[in-house]
Amino acid sequence: MSNKLITLAHGGGGKTSARLVKEHLLSRLGNSILDQLSDAAILQIPADEIAFTTDSYVVSPWRFPGGDIGKLAVCGTVNDLAVMGARPAWLTLGMIIEEGFSLEHFDEVVDSIARTASDAGVKIVAGDTKVVPHGQADGIYLNTAGIGVFDENHRRFSIPPKVGDKLFITSALADHGLAVMAVRENLPLTTPLTSDCAPLNGLVETLREAGAVRWLRDCTRGGLASAANELAESCKLGLRLDEESLIVHDATRAISELLGLDILHVANEGLLLGVVSADDAQAVLQAARSHPYGSEAALIGEITADNSGRVIMETAIGGERIVDMLIGEQLPRIC
Amino acid sequence: MSNKLITLAHGGGGKTSARLVKEHLLSRLGNSILDQLSDAAILQIPADEIAFTTDSYVVSPWRFPGGDIGKLAVCGTVNDLAVMGARPAWLTLGMIIEEGFSLEHFDEVVDSIARTASDAGVKIVAGDTKVVPHGQADGIYLNTAGIGVFDENHRRFSIPPKVGDKLFITSALADHGLAVMAVRENLPLTTPLTSDCAPLNGLVETLREAGAVRWLRDCTRGGLASAANELAESCKLGLRLDEESLIVHDATRAISELLGLDILHVANEGLLLGVVSADDAQAVLQAARSHPYGSEAALIGEITADNSGRVIMETAIGGERIVDMLIGEQLPRIC
Repeated sequence: MSNKLITLAHGGGGKTSARLVKEHLLSRLGNSILDQLSDAAILQIPADEIAFTTDSYVVSPWRFPGGDIGKLAVCGTVNDLAVMGARPAWLTLGMIIEEGFSLEHFDEVVDSIARTASDAGVKIVAGDTKVVPHGQADGIYLNTAGIGVFDENHRRFSIPPKVGDKLFITSALADHGLAVMAVRENLPLTTPLTSDCAPLNGLVETLREAGAVRWLRDCTRGGLASAANELAESCKLGLRLDEESLIVHDATRAISELLGLDILHVANEGLLLGVVSADDAQAVLQAARSHPYGSEAALIGEITADNSGRVIMETAIGGERIVDMLIGEQLPRIC
Repeated sequence: MSNKLITLAHGGGGKTSARLVKEHLLSRLGNSILDQLSDAAILQIPADEIAFTTDSYVVSPWRFPGGDIGKLAVCGTVNDLAVMGARPAWLTLGMIIEEGFSLEHFDEVVDSIARTASDAGVKIVAGDTKVVPHGQADGIYLNTAGIGVFDENHRRFSIPPKVGDKLFITSALADHGLAVMAVRENLPLTTPLTSDCAPLNGLVETLREAGAVRWLRDCTRGGLASAANELAESCKLGLRLDEESLIVHDATRAISELLGLDILHVANEGLLLGVVSADDAQAVLQAARSHPYGSEAALIGEITADNSGRVIMETAIGGERIVDMLIGEQLPRIC
């Protein structure tokens, strides 16, 4: 079993394709909608407003401490829906597989997708599998698209951030990107480093129930710096971050220094940046810390009237610096 | 301008990524939803039932006679929604680009996506761009996911096929797969061969208005043979095809014979296989022929009580043969 490989025939649309779908995909991901294998899934929509998003995933290596490309592909899309305030409900799954990828590893990825979808409470309802010749991809690439539902308990965060609102993050910074880099580059670690990859829709609900959350974003590619700058630009106010309040694990800091990377630019896959009213900041912080995916949550700054559209950080030594978006690319294939 | 290349920075989530999105994607695909660049698009749903589907596209070469990967990625997903009876409305777009792909070619692909989406009456409402290092993909791969809406004028084809119903196709067979192969293999052609790639939602509406259409499928990967076998299996009746009634262009037949390929197994990207009541067969045929994408439509057989679950073809010389699904893969990266 363990030496069976994905072949071009698995993507050919014939009998071998059909067997891959039935024996390796439906057996793990199947549900009453997917099992119909229609050209499109039919969904009953219990709302008049939905959220719709997509991401492709090309992380290398496909398996890393704390997750794999399958878990990542579910979490990434679930989180994009959750931060909009929607209830993630249905996902599609597109796979591009390199000829010669191990069928055992394929099963492992699909098992991980199934487990994470179950954790997040979403269903895979449609999919597609393509196989490209050896050398025309690198292992396996995934795409998920997702639909989230807005209903009575899941509404958009519609009150814009205002001056004095507090900024919070829900976990330690940069663990995902540096965990992937450490395993890719085979770096010697004294302390293990684990990706924060997690489905955050449950945490979003917990935060929402605890207080007046104004805005949420999951800080993936481009890191905290990108999300913070997008927030500053979109609300046309300033952001002031307090460097000392940022949570960074020792191993993460060590690897970032070794590689010369700015923690603020490194991708996370289970970290929310949020804005909460000053009155509710402590309640939301405590609620976050009560949740398994928010146990290291921290208040990290506030919205300011000055420095409109910019992100300023008070450094640990008492200075100030502008936190800019990453210009280029420091870590390819991190998500 | 023409020698600018896609770099890893274009997929990094920083400033270069943002510029690619604004200057090369939004400028061509932009609309009031996509322009918001949220983590997810917010959609108002004017129905309580939708169709949801996805496909990835890896065709090689990315440009071929009659289309390119961008046109294909829109048509494929639009057609999957249309054959379910839904009105295709919104698409997401995931791109995996190989470092070094020409920015001019990228723009050409995005222009083609924009043009085809406009033809089909759908909007691109969310997207994602990943860049992988040189040698870890081959040019550009796309994924689209799509949502179609069921409403008063767009309902599922809910009456199952029955014995005596007629089978029809809406265009000549196998042009897409063989046009791609001819250009990929640089085959000498006396007559030009053009892909049938087209958005078929308008044609589906025309057919529906003309008569009692029971079932539709677009015959992509696996060709007419796969779609016919799926129909026979799902309705648990037999299918009898008449070989002489199949439309095959001379150039297509010549290439298929040169390459030793069975026309029935070759992918199409603008061909519907349909089932219509015997009473309405002529009306639906005439309606198809009145539409630009159905001008070569033909009645090709009927549903039978015998040979349940199987597809039988009466050959041109008066014999019979079983039309089976393709076993393996004859044409990798055809769609």
